[in-house]
Amino acid sequence: MLSPFGGRGEGNSGWLNVNGNTKGVQKLREISIPDSEKMQKVISLCKRRGFIFQSSEIYGGLKSAYDYGPLGVELKRNIMNEWWKAMVYQREDVVGLDASILMHPKVWQASGHLACFSDPLVDCLNCKERFRPDKAPRAKPGEEVEFVEGGKKRGRKRRALVERDYVCPNCGCPELSPERHFHLMFRTFLGPVDMLEELVEVVDRNRGLSRAELKEAVASVLERNSVYLRPETAQAMFVQFLNIQKSMSMKIPFGIAQMGKSFRNEVTVKHYIFRSCEFEQMELEFFVEPGTQEEWLEYWKEERLKWYRKFANRPEMFRAREHTPQELAHYADKCYDIEYRYPWGWDELEGVASRTDYDLRKHSEASGVKIEYFDPTKKNEKTGKMGVRYTPYVIEPAAGATRSVLVYLLDAYAEEEPPEEGKSGRTVLRLHPRLAPFKVAVFPLVKKDGMPELARKIVQEFFEAGIHAKYDEQHAIGRRYLRHDEVGTPFCLTVDGQSFEDETVTIRYRDTREQRRIKIREALDVVKKELSREEK
Amino acid sequence: MLSPFGGRGEGNSGWLNVNGNTKGVQKLREISIPDSEKMQKVISLCKRRGFIFQSSEIYGGLKSAYDYGPLGVELKRNIMNEWWKAMVYQREDVVGLDASILMHPKVWQASGHLACFSDPLVDCLNCKERFRPDKAPRAKPGEEVEFVEGGKKRGRKRRALVERDYVCPNCGCPELSPERHFHLMFRTFLGPVDMLEELVEVVDRNRGLSRAELKEAVASVLERNSVYLRPETAQAMFVQFLNIQKSMSMKIPFGIAQMGKSFRNEVTVKHYIFRSCEFEQMELEFFVEPGTQEEWLEYWKEERLKWYRKFANRPEMFRAREHTPQELAHYADKCYDIEYRYPWGWDELEGVASRTDYDLRKHSEASGVKIEYFDPTKKNEKTGKMGVRYTPYVIEPAAGATRSVLVYLLDAYAEEEPPEEGKSGRTVLRLHPRLAPFKVAVFPLVKKDGMPELARKIVQEFFEAGIHAKYDEQHAIGRRYLRHDEVGTPFCLTVDGQSFEDETVTIRYRDTREQRRIKIREALDVVKKELSREEK
Repeated sequence: MLSPFGGRGEGNSGWLNVNGNTKGVQKLREISIPDSEKMQKVISLCKRRGFIFQSSEIYGGLKSAYDYGPLGVELKRNIMNEWWKAMVYQREDVVGLDASILMHPKVWQASGHLACFSDPLVDCLNCKERFRPDKAPRAKPGEEVEFVEGGKKRGRKRRALVERDYVCPNCGCPELSPERHFHLMFRTFLGPVDMLEELVEVVDRNRGLSRAELKEAVASVLERNSVYLRPETAQAMFVQFLNIQKSMSMKIPFGIAQMGKSFRNEVTVKHYIFRSCEFEQMELEFFVEPGTQEEWLEYWKEERLKWYRKFANRPEMFRAREHTPQELAHYADKCYDIEYRYPWGWDELEGVASRTDYDLRKHSEASGVKIEYFDPTKKNEKTGKMGVRYTPYVIEPAAGATRSVLVYLLDAYAEEEPPEEGKSGRTVLRLHPRLAPFKVAVFPLVKKDGMPELARKIVQEFFEAGIHAKYDEQHAIGRRYLRHDEVGTPFCLTVDGQSFEDETVTIRYRDTREQRRIKIREALDVVKKELSREEK
Repeated sequence: MLSPFGGRGEGNSGWLNVNGNTKGVQKLREISIPDSEKMQKVISLCKRRGFIFQSSEIYGGLKSAYDYGPLGVELKRNIMNEWWKAMVYQREDVVGLDASILMHPKVWQASGHLACFSDPLVDCLNCKERFRPDKAPRAKPGEEVEFVEGGKKRGRKRRALVERDYVCPNCGCPELSPERHFHLMFRTFLGPVDMLEELVEVVDRNRGLSRAELKEAVASVLERNSVYLRPETAQAMFVQFLNIQKSMSMKIPFGIAQMGKSFRNEVTVKHYIFRSCEFEQMELEFFVEPGTQEEWLEYWKEERLKWYRKFANRPEMFRAREHTPQELAHYADKCYDIEYRYPWGWDELEGVASRTDYDLRKHSEASGVKIEYFDPTKKNEKTGKMGVRYTPYVIEPAAGATRSVLVYLLDAYAEEEPPEEGKSGRTVLRLHPRLAPFKVAVFPLVKKDGMPELARKIVQEFFEAGIHAKYDEQHAIGRRYLRHDEVGTPFCLTVDGQSFEDETVTIRYRDTREQRRIKIREALDVVKKELSREEK
C-alpha cells in the first residue's frame, strides 16, 4: 500500500511535503502565518490542549518554569527517546549515563563554572530595572539623553549625560550602578547543617567587623556548605570517564551520552520555553584520538543536522553555523551552532564543539587522578614499542531537549483553508508520527449499536502493544477529527455500521485528510509500519 | 517453539522458576547467599560492571549521590518505561505529566511541607555526633551509664546520668543538646538577586540587634528569596488538576501519572541507593468520587503488587502491609505499604495511600481557586436536578524508581555452582528480559573467516529495530557468555562456521545455559517475541 505519508524521506528533504503532488490526495492550502503571530498561536494551543502549562499557575506562576501536560510530556519523551535510540541503541560506539544533579562542588571548581559562570548585571538608578549591559540599547558616551524620572509612568522628563556605551533598556536613563557579576549556578545546602544558626553565630561573634570583613565571613559560611545544581550534564561524563571506559572496556573513539535536567539562574528568560531556568539537555561527549578531532567534528555536525531534519516538515529551517574566532570559547578549537529559524530569527538549538583535552585535563589536575587512555594497538614513536598513552580529545554535540520541543511545535503548527466550499478549515500539528503524542485515535461513529464496544476492542490492541492510543466518543465525528488534527494524531480509525459486515474500519490520515477502509485485523500492523519507517 | 523462559507467568508466581522442571533443561544449583553478604555482592557487581558509581568519585564522592552507568541507566529506564506503559499507555483513565522541579514556594506552604517536613536532630555534647533521637539507642532516665570521654578513641571513661529516653548512638553519652528541627527540603534562590549582598546589608544595618532579632532578620532575607527543590512529585498533580482535567476532558475516576527526580536532605542515608538525597519517583494520583475511595485503594494495592511480581523471580518477597492507626498520616484515611524483603528485612518500596480530599482542599484554600469537579451525569440529591459538584478524593500509589532498581538487582542476583565437573560456576543476573540492559549479545565464534562481519550484520538488524544489542568479540566465547550472564543479557547469538553453510546461529539462553540453532532470519523475531510477551 502506498502511504499518504509517501512524500517524506528523500535525503534531507524532511519527512513530508504536504503541498506536494502525492497521488490521489487533495491539495490543501496552507494559510501563511506571520512570524509575529506564530509564537502566540503555538503558546495558546499548548495551554488549551494540554501540552505546556505555566508551573504553579494557580499561585500566579513561577518565573520561567513550565510543566509539560499530558500531550507535552509525550512529545518530549518521544523526542528524547529518538535521540537515545539514535545515539545509544543504534551505535556500537556510544554508551549511556544518568548522573546525579547534585555533584561535588570541586567539579565546578575544576570546570571553571564556579569562577566564571556569571552574567554582569547593572541596576538603573532611576527606574530600578536590573539588566545585562551587553543586551542594553547602545549609546554614545558624552551625549545628552532624555528619560522619564522615576520610571515611565511618573511623567516628569529629565536629561542626563551618557557615561558608558549603553543606557537602561526600560527607561533610557544613563545613570547606572556599577556592573556586578551575578552567578548563574543555583546554590543549595547539603547535609544536616542549620545554615541560619551558623550565619547568626558568625555575625553575632563579629559585630565589630568592617563591612568588607563581614562580607567575607558570611561568604565563607555560605561557601563551606554549598553544593550546586548542575548547569549542564556534560561534566559528569568527564568525571566518570575512567569508570565507564574501564567497566565497559570501551575503545577510542567512543562516546558517553546523557539526557536530563540542568539549571541556570538566567537573568534574561524569554521566548516561552526557549530560555528557562530549568531545562532538559541531551549531551554526547565523544572521545577521540588527538589529531582526529576535526574530522569527527564535521561528522557529528552532519549527523546531528540530519537527525533534526529527519523529523521536520521544513528541513531548510535548520542550519549549521561555524563560530567566529570572537565567539569561540577559550577551551574550544572549533565549534558549530546548529540553528533553527525561530519566529524571532536564527538562534541556537544545539552546539557541536571540539573541546580539545581541556575538560579531562582540568579534572585530572584538580582531582589528582590520572585520566588517560591507553591504546595497545598504536606504536609509541619515542620508544618504538607498541602502546600509546594519551589524554583524549572530545567532540561535544550538546542539544537542548526543551528547545527541540519548541522547534518541532513551531515546525508542525499549520492552519489550512477549507479544502472546498462548505467544509471547515483547520489547525493541524504536522508532527512526525514518531513524535506525535497519540499515535492513533479510535472512534465509534455513534455511541450505540455495539460500536463503542468494537472500538474499545481495537484500542485495546494498541494498548497491549504499548502504542499510545486514544479512545474518543465525545461530540460528532467531524469535531473529533479536528480535535486530533490539532494535537497531531497521525491516524484515526473509525468503527461504523459496515465494520460489522466486512470487519473493516476507516483509517483517516491527518495530513491529507484522506480516508480509506482497511481490515480491522490489519490496523495495528498498518500503524506499526508507519511508525517503524526509518528515513534514509 | 517452547521457550526456556516458559516457567514464568503463572498468575503471581513471577516470570521464571529457574530451579523448576522446564523440559530438556539442566538443573542448576543455586548457591545460597546470606543476607549479610548480599548487599556487598550487589554493590560490587554494580561498580565493576557499570551499573552504579558513586557520584563525583574522583573527588572523594558526594554523600548519598549516585550515578547510573551504561548498564544502570538502561535498567532504570526499562523499569520506568514499564511503569509508564502500564500506567499511561495501557489504560484509558490515566494521563501523564512532567512538572518542573522548582515550584512556587506557596505550593509547599499549602501542602504543609514548609511547616512540617523536618526531622528532629540532637548533638552529642561529648563526641559531637548529630543524630535523630527516634533512631538512637533507648535508655532509662535516671540510670547511670558509662561512655568514653571525647569520643571512642580518646580512652578516658566517664559516667553520667541518663536524662532522656535515649543516648548518643556513637559514644553512648547521655549529655545532649536540645532537640532541633532540621528541614528536609533543599532550599535555593531564584532570580537575579545577590543574597550575599542582601545579607551583609541587613546585618550591617542592624549591628545593635539582639541575637534573636538578628536571627529573625537573617531568616527573613533567606525566606524572601527561597524556592525549594520538590521533595515529592505529587503536589504538581494537585496544583495542575484543573488544567489537566479541562484540557483533556477527563471524567472521574481518572489519574495523573508522573515520573521524575525528587530531593530530600536526608539526615540518615543508608543501604546504598535505598535512601538517598536525590532519588526518582513514579507517582500516580488517581481522583475518585468521595465514598468510592476504599474500593479504589484495594484495586490499586492489588494492581501495584501484581506489577512488581510480574518482573520478579521471587514474587513472595513482595507484600502489602496496612498502616497501623499510629503510622497513618493525618490526611490519610487508610494506607498500605508495598514492601520488599531486603537483606535487612521487610521495608518500604511503595506507599498506596487514600489521601481523602486533603490536598485539593488545601491548594484550593491557599490559592483562592476553586478546585472541584462537576459530574453532569449524577443527580443532586438536594436540588433534585442533574449535576453534582464535589472535591474529588485521591488514591496515591507512590513508587520509588530508585528503590525499584535496587529491588530488581537484589531479586536477580544469583550465584550458581558448576553444572557439572570441569565446567565453571557463575554469577548471573536473572533480570526479566524486558528489564535487562542488553536484550541480546551477538558474537563471532572467532575473530576471522568473515564471522565478525556476519555477526555485525546481525547486530545491525537489532540496532535498526531500536533493540539494545551488544556486539562482542573480546576474549574466548565461554568468557563472553559468563560476562553477559553477569549483566543479565537474556540471549546470546553466536556466529560460527556452520552459519555460512545453513544460515543459522546458536542462541543461548541465560537462565538455563541451553543452546539451540535458529535461522539467522528468525533471530530478530525470536527475541522480539520474548520481549513482547505479556504475563497474564
